[in-house]
Amino acid sequence: MSRSPFVAVNFQPTGALGRVTQDDIIRQMAAEIQAGRLRPNMRLPPVRTLEERFGISKNTVQAAYDELAARGLVESRARLGMFVAAVPEGNVSVPMFQASSAQLRASGLPSVQAVPSDHVRLDMVFIDWKLLPREQIADCMRSVLANPGLRPLYDGQGHAGLRAKIAARLSHRGMDVDPDDVILTGGSQQALDMVARSLQHRVIATENPVYSHARYLFAGLGCQLVPLTLNPFQSIDLAEWEETLRETRPALVYVIPHFQNPTGYSYSTSELERLLELSEELGFAILEDDWGSDMLSGSEFRPTLRALGGSNVLYVNSFTKKLLPSLRLGYIVASKATREALVAAKRLATLGNPEFLEAVLFEFMDRGYYDSHLARMNAELDLRYSACLSVLRETMPPEVRFSLPGGGPTLWLELPSQVNLRQLSERLSAQRIAIQMTHGHFYGKPHLDGFRVGYAYNEPHVMREAVARVAAELRQLVLQGEG
Amino acid sequence: MSRSPFVAVNFQPTGALGRVTQDDIIRQMAAEIQAGRLRPNMRLPPVRTLEERFGISKNTVQAAYDELAARGLVESRARLGMFVAAVPEGNVSVPMFQASSAQLRASGLPSVQAVPSDHVRLDMVFIDWKLLPREQIADCMRSVLANPGLRPLYDGQGHAGLRAKIAARLSHRGMDVDPDDVILTGGSQQALDMVARSLQHRVIATENPVYSHARYLFAGLGCQLVPLTLNPFQSIDLAEWEETLRETRPALVYVIPHFQNPTGYSYSTSELERLLELSEELGFAILEDDWGSDMLSGSEFRPTLRALGGSNVLYVNSFTKKLLPSLRLGYIVASKATREALVAAKRLATLGNPEFLEAVLFEFMDRGYYDSHLARMNAELDLRYSACLSVLRETMPPEVRFSLPGGGPTLWLELPSQVNLRQLSERLSAQRIAIQMTHGHFYGKPHLDGFRVGYAYNEPHVMREAVARVAAELRQLVLQGEG
Repeated sequence: MSRSPFVAVNFQPTGALGRVTQDDIIRQMAAEIQAGRLRPNMRLPPVRTLEERFGISKNTVQAAYDELAARGLVESRARLGMFVAAVPEGNVSVPMFQASSAQLRASGLPSVQAVPSDHVRLDMVFIDWKLLPREQIADCMRSVLANPGLRPLYDGQGHAGLRAKIAARLSHRGMDVDPDDVILTGGSQQALDMVARSLQHRVIATENPVYSHARYLFAGLGCQLVPLTLNPFQSIDLAEWEETLRETRPALVYVIPHFQNPTGYSYSTSELERLLELSEELGFAILEDDWGSDMLSGSEFRPTLRALGGSNVLYVNSFTKKLLPSLRLGYIVASKATREALVAAKRLATLGNPEFLEAVLFEFMDRGYYDSHLARMNAELDLRYSACLSVLRETMPPEVRFSLPGGGPTLWLELPSQVNLRQLSERLSAQRIAIQMTHGHFYGKPHLDGFRVGYAYNEPHVMREAVARVAAELRQLVLQGEG
Repeated sequence: MSRSPFVAVNFQPTGALGRVTQDDIIRQMAAEIQAGRLRPNMRLPPVRTLEERFGISKNTVQAAYDELAARGLVESRARLGMFVAAVPEGNVSVPMFQASSAQLRASGLPSVQAVPSDHVRLDMVFIDWKLLPREQIADCMRSVLANPGLRPLYDGQGHAGLRAKIAARLSHRGMDVDPDDVILTGGSQQALDMVARSLQHRVIATENPVYSHARYLFAGLGCQLVPLTLNPFQSIDLAEWEETLRETRPALVYVIPHFQNPTGYSYSTSELERLLELSEELGFAILEDDWGSDMLSGSEFRPTLRALGGSNVLYVNSFTKKLLPSLRLGYIVASKATREALVAAKRLATLGNPEFLEAVLFEFMDRGYYDSHLARMNAELDLRYSACLSVLRETMPPEVRFSLPGGGPTLWLELPSQVNLRQLSERLSAQRIAIQMTHGHFYGKPHLDGFRVGYAYNEPHVMREAVARVAAELRQLVLQGEG
């Protein structure tokens, strides 16, 4: 018997027994053929298929086909099966389906730019893979596979043991967090998505420059965005922020108060407290993205909005940069009042996340691997940071400034305004050095003239060499600008 | 030295060298204290912290602190560190932060109902864990860990090898699919999310009864919903559908044409073709959810909308039910025209998904495990299906009807309209049997009076016993209704 496709048919039992009869098959199939819905030369289901599908005997089906064949409606073809009879006239052909499904809108998100693989990547916010604990994670995976093994189901809020570990870590940093307030997410991006899709009043204020993927996400969900100017070389103009917030009345202010992406700026305690006061006064919620904390030495001492402001601040963090980006693990800390709405938003978006990876991270933390890994990684990041500072100080023309994040993987390099960033990028690309274009970080015309420099992705000598080349190009461009 | 938290401070370099000087620290910290933003008794950063953060010498920091102490603004406390000087008067206390973050709306999604663990679950759409290939998946995980090992990064569209495997499988079912058209997702739910958030004109038609998590998802994203009546005991009234679609003009029609959830109905080929014609005529896109295919024997022969309609039909499927729900793996098949928008929607929602699990499924398919697993599992599902049909036929009162999905894990049991479903559910619960309440499947008043019965989750003898008890209760309720 050929395995060529056959059509799907339905039969409705009409008798009292609720079972499809020979007569049901004959009448209903004849009607389909006569109405032209089953068309000439279509292959019909094999007898065995109908037998199993409807739980009826082979003889019942065969007798029905025999009757239909006798009426000239179907025909049996040797070794090929049963077909709707070929009748040359009256063949209604279905027009080729051509409807466009271009009902989908583009998101505004730029495509991922392919950087040639031989380029030194100063645009990378990621940390050198060699500093990440791949083998320790693999060990934990093997261990979880051995015991407790793969579980079939998952918890919509996330692995309870891991949530407790995270709550305990945050408590050590002065945050009052119950494990039930922690919701595990697929990186911090899913956490931002959950908050934005749950917002009643869809206006969100963010820093400008902003972490661009948050901006595209919020805009893609139809939120109106309000920019709050940030300049890593000055304190925040909180009077200006207050005026903007009073005028626009956002429901949510999204901020990265430590190691802001892309500038590397960290809010002072008094800036954090003023923001909390404004939150209370103007009635906006705060979404605090603390991605940088575990990448900065001593960050266990940095006060967070969540620690100062308590359970009304939504707190987001992620393991993407510190472990492996491909694990896609993060979390949001909610409160009794917001937990249910956020878990529901997560369930709507993905129902739940892969439980195995959460169990692996639990094991990783339970063994004490996470703290020892962070200590090692941050010591290396500190070295790379100070290597970057020294090459900047040695080589950059005096007009160039840079932010001082105090560690982590990136800082902001601010150029004299006469330098054309695209021209610089092209010249560097010719030397196989990639820098980040600021596209997407700014609302409207940028008030900063520079870009984010990643010093943690490359070996220090490679990074130093690349930064020195940036400096050499800049000196040329500054001279040209003056000439 | 105590490890009590200290405040965060920022200093801006004001000199030409771009480096924070002793004078910068003194002037800027004094200003913060005098403005009351750094308040009495706050702990200041240790010398070492400022040294590392700003890349300046320990002596510079110490000299600045000494000067501030001399001015009476800060004070050193033995073994505790440096503090803002305690001055009893003028202490501006920050009011406790009390702003409510109740800016989040509830989603309408009902909470997960806890069913007591001793209940027989006739409400489950899942398949008995004992039929799922846990050990084979664990083997593939160990194998991927050994070679190629954990990769740090991920592909935003999903593992290329797995996408090619999926495209090849679909091609065997008559669909013309390029691996570049396949986008991997976290279960089918993420695929539905990506489509809904990308929709330009936000009106979606769905079957009624509908897969409830799709309904809540679409509504949560602000889409307007149009119900299309489905009755598993009749052919689809396509004239009525056409009228509704003409009137409401949805951008998208979301359907489950094979083994519809919750009814178990499968569209006939002529119904599929008419829907494609309407799609072309009225200009709506089709989102086909084919979740049942790999759970139904012989489903490789069932025609799909994607096979008949080509690349304008978006096709979704998932491995949730057939492998392990906790893996969260699914995919959507787009086309050249829709791929970019959908990949962008996925990147906005989660940036990307865990690469390791995709590599594991690739390995699983590459070893031929998937096909052999499906053959075993579907043979067992067929047995459970026919066991369910026989106990229904043996025990149910004649007024009760049931759909005939032909395999898979569930069917629809339709009751006489005088039976009160909640009352039935309570009586069964007292006998430790859980059935599904239809809450959420219907728009408005249900036109069906029944519920979905899962026959694949329990051992056949347990399922038979439970179904027989449902029948006994129903007989009583029908008699009462007549009495």
